[in-house]
Amino acid sequence: MSRISCPVLAAKVVAAEEAVAHIHDGDNVGFSGFTGAGYPKAVPAALAATMIRAHDEGRQFQVGLWTGASTAPDADGVLAAAHGISTRLPYNSDPTLRGMINAGDVRYIDAHLSHSAQQMWFGFYGKLNVAVVEVTAALGDGVLVPSSSVGNNKTWLDQAERVILEVNHWQPRELEGFHDVYYGTALPPSRRPIMLTEALQRIGEPYLHVDPDKVVAVVETRRPDRNAPFSPPDDTSRAIAGHLVDFLRHEVRAGRMPQGLLPIQSGVGNVANAVLAGLDDSEFTDLVAFTEVLQDGMLDLLDSGTLRAASATSFGLSSDGMRRFRAGIDGYKGRILLRSQEISNHPEVVRRLGVLAMNGMIEADIYGNVNSTHIMGSAIMNGIGGSGDFARNGFCSFFLSPSTAKGGAISAIVPMVSHVDHTEHDVDVVVTEQGLADLRGLAPRDRAPRIIERCAHPSFRDQLRDYFDRALAARPNARHTPHLLGEALSWHQRYLDSGSMLTV
Amino acid sequence: MSRISCPVLAAKVVAAEEAVAHIHDGDNVGFSGFTGAGYPKAVPAALAATMIRAHDEGRQFQVGLWTGASTAPDADGVLAAAHGISTRLPYNSDPTLRGMINAGDVRYIDAHLSHSAQQMWFGFYGKLNVAVVEVTAALGDGVLVPSSSVGNNKTWLDQAERVILEVNHWQPRELEGFHDVYYGTALPPSRRPIMLTEALQRIGEPYLHVDPDKVVAVVETRRPDRNAPFSPPDDTSRAIAGHLVDFLRHEVRAGRMPQGLLPIQSGVGNVANAVLAGLDDSEFTDLVAFTEVLQDGMLDLLDSGTLRAASATSFGLSSDGMRRFRAGIDGYKGRILLRSQEISNHPEVVRRLGVLAMNGMIEADIYGNVNSTHIMGSAIMNGIGGSGDFARNGFCSFFLSPSTAKGGAISAIVPMVSHVDHTEHDVDVVVTEQGLADLRGLAPRDRAPRIIERCAHPSFRDQLRDYFDRALAARPNARHTPHLLGEALSWHQRYLDSGSMLTV
Repeated sequence: MSRISCPVLAAKVVAAEEAVAHIHDGDNVGFSGFTGAGYPKAVPAALAATMIRAHDEGRQFQVGLWTGASTAPDADGVLAAAHGISTRLPYNSDPTLRGMINAGDVRYIDAHLSHSAQQMWFGFYGKLNVAVVEVTAALGDGVLVPSSSVGNNKTWLDQAERVILEVNHWQPRELEGFHDVYYGTALPPSRRPIMLTEALQRIGEPYLHVDPDKVVAVVETRRPDRNAPFSPPDDTSRAIAGHLVDFLRHEVRAGRMPQGLLPIQSGVGNVANAVLAGLDDSEFTDLVAFTEVLQDGMLDLLDSGTLRAASATSFGLSSDGMRRFRAGIDGYKGRILLRSQEISNHPEVVRRLGVLAMNGMIEADIYGNVNSTHIMGSAIMNGIGGSGDFARNGFCSFFLSPSTAKGGAISAIVPMVSHVDHTEHDVDVVVTEQGLADLRGLAPRDRAPRIIERCAHPSFRDQLRDYFDRALAARPNARHTPHLLGEALSWHQRYLDSGSMLTV
Repeated sequence: MSRISCPVLAAKVVAAEEAVAHIHDGDNVGFSGFTGAGYPKAVPAALAATMIRAHDEGRQFQVGLWTGASTAPDADGVLAAAHGISTRLPYNSDPTLRGMINAGDVRYIDAHLSHSAQQMWFGFYGKLNVAVVEVTAALGDGVLVPSSSVGNNKTWLDQAERVILEVNHWQPRELEGFHDVYYGTALPPSRRPIMLTEALQRIGEPYLHVDPDKVVAVVETRRPDRNAPFSPPDDTSRAIAGHLVDFLRHEVRAGRMPQGLLPIQSGVGNVANAVLAGLDDSEFTDLVAFTEVLQDGMLDLLDSGTLRAASATSFGLSSDGMRRFRAGIDGYKGRILLRSQEISNHPEVVRRLGVLAMNGMIEADIYGNVNSTHIMGSAIMNGIGGSGDFARNGFCSFFLSPSTAKGGAISAIVPMVSHVDHTEHDVDVVVTEQGLADLRGLAPRDRAPRIIERCAHPSFRDQLRDYFDRALAARPNARHTPHLLGEALSWHQRYLDSGSMLTV
């Protein structure tokens, strides 16, 4: 059955190879996609092939690539391999592209996901020349059924000069009705309150809109999303989840959180998935999620009733997860809503709902500053994503990590983080498999012993205590956040030099 | 004429020395006060005297002190000198107290000003035992006319177990009508949108409320606020203002800002005052301010028509400024509105209005991370205040500083900041007297040369270029944010060791 009932758009169906003629060297191109979901599946490869031909002929052909967040090897990956990306924003997790960013070949603007759409609209990134957006179906008059992620699609479709649509027959046609696209945003000074007061409330409509006259090509595809499956929780991530669930239990008993908790935001990855599993094994029930990505783990919670409903901007489902979702799709309708990332991550909404922000980290320092993005201070891992949107504005911010990495050579608790993404002002709770450090209401000097004793791996505790003790003693008039500046980053340097942060 | 028309409260008038009997060792005490305005004037000294007597008799007597923001020597100062403060939040600028924090004698929790009221209400700081709040007048039924700042008073009055009011006859009785106190906040999950869409819109009422039964004492005072006057703009701050005004002009021409700009937030201090003076000398007119503190400079702008209206949470007026304000008070009514700091700094409102966030800084690094709080990484200066609330959520964030300090020995542009309060994700524009670096849409690697060439003092540029060049060369696979970790903080260490960041 045709997915393109709009006659104007049906007349524009072409092969991907033909569509990419509308993309030129130097263009800024806005892709759909948030995690390996809803990204364009045919245009990127065709564009990469065109770029490689151009490069072979000695012609320049690179674009600035903007997305919702990460995409997949057949989008970011092929374009990176073709040396086709000059600048990239606001988030990337593709290993090929990461390598090129770190080699200095690609310029990466790592932005808060709640900032990307508005800053594009403000004109901070320049003009958006082409949008390439995957949809599930194109109905009449440029009404589009979104696919498995929404991301920045609304803004890209509105703001781009030219639009290429990919209509993906692989996406379940039944996705119609799973989305809530808010068309009430504006530029200041014309902004109005966003009237969302419950996680699953509809404030928009189930469709994206595009001006059919701007659409220069429509490409049909039948290719699957690609999200990596998560490993089953190991002992370390189960221990992290256990500490976190205990803490939530304690907060409910103390009257600081309602019995049904507050809306949960959970980052992407194995630890986050383990936290969800931990919640599923707990007494908590009838919870709601207000998050970015609906992972496999959330399907378990929706099935068991631990989760009543979930708002997100993307399905980060593995192929197994996608099978489960398809099989039960009618039952999920009304319990899952995908929104634009400017709404899923909006400071206004996150603060109003009082989201519990649970995010992974690379490292925390003894004073509670968190690095989410950089390896040894200089090399980018992925990006800040939405962690700042939720940590700053949520009810309570949690940062989670195993206490060590690289077989014990790296401590996730260090004297001073080598890059700061979340400052001491935004970090409430740090959790490792060793334990949980509740930092609320603590001065920096009191945070240090708590983080060291509760969260650091025992093999690094003496080194950390020694640093803190000597820092406290070194400058008697500088004891608010005691540091030895000549040594603060020496752990990272030691790792670079010797392969371990351990002194012995 | 009596300022206390509420008979229940009139019956509770006592001397300050008597009132402080309601404050006990170990209490958490919430003072009014935001800058040297609206803080209690009699109770602190009486409390300090009681504490000193207790200490002389070998008894412990310390309190946790919570405020709106800074206060003045006769509040923070006397209590600090009496060794009467155990913990302090969310902001301090008192030099005596600063010394004790840095000596390790007082625990300081440096919090976003938009977080302080809600986190208290969430229960993150423990129980508030006593509120001590200055007001202009106490009308019937516990209706209070606020004084020269609002700060966290609404929350303190609501949440405290016991309340002491100071009715200050020095405050102009005509302040009635200058306030807009919003009583619509709630705990999640019961929060509603804050329906503020214009800087001067009223969403609350002109009064604070207190349950008269909770009021344990009322103290009458006649003492002035104490705000230090600002120095007249010098060449350096005039140059900073000039670069900033040029940039605004350029943004208007480029169509990225409306002719009347967007609401202005301006930090406190001499540089901020110079920026206001620069705006007053420019072609801009009919602007609005949505800020924390209404300084002397804003009166000039209101008088000249550069500023149509101003929303703030405090009058940070010098005694001269206060005289001018009193003289023209009827003309200012309707053009100035004081709000609770949870509204003046609210992420929801700041983002909706699209505030232009202009804040001072201690230092920025070549990648655009900003330190607003710490001297050489360890000693606190004042605190983050509201700078994070505005920088993260505003339309565009500016950080301003002279390019050097201590007669040229310290560079405000360094390889790596010694403490991070605003991350690279939140810093759009850096300005010194040397020039302005527009960082929007730039990757870290491109920010470095721009900041060095535009903002650093010429005497430090070669050193900065050398660091950046060597960092770029050092690790060819770590060029996203090139750093030499063994050297990144060496400028600060050199200053500590030799008194200068200069190598020669």
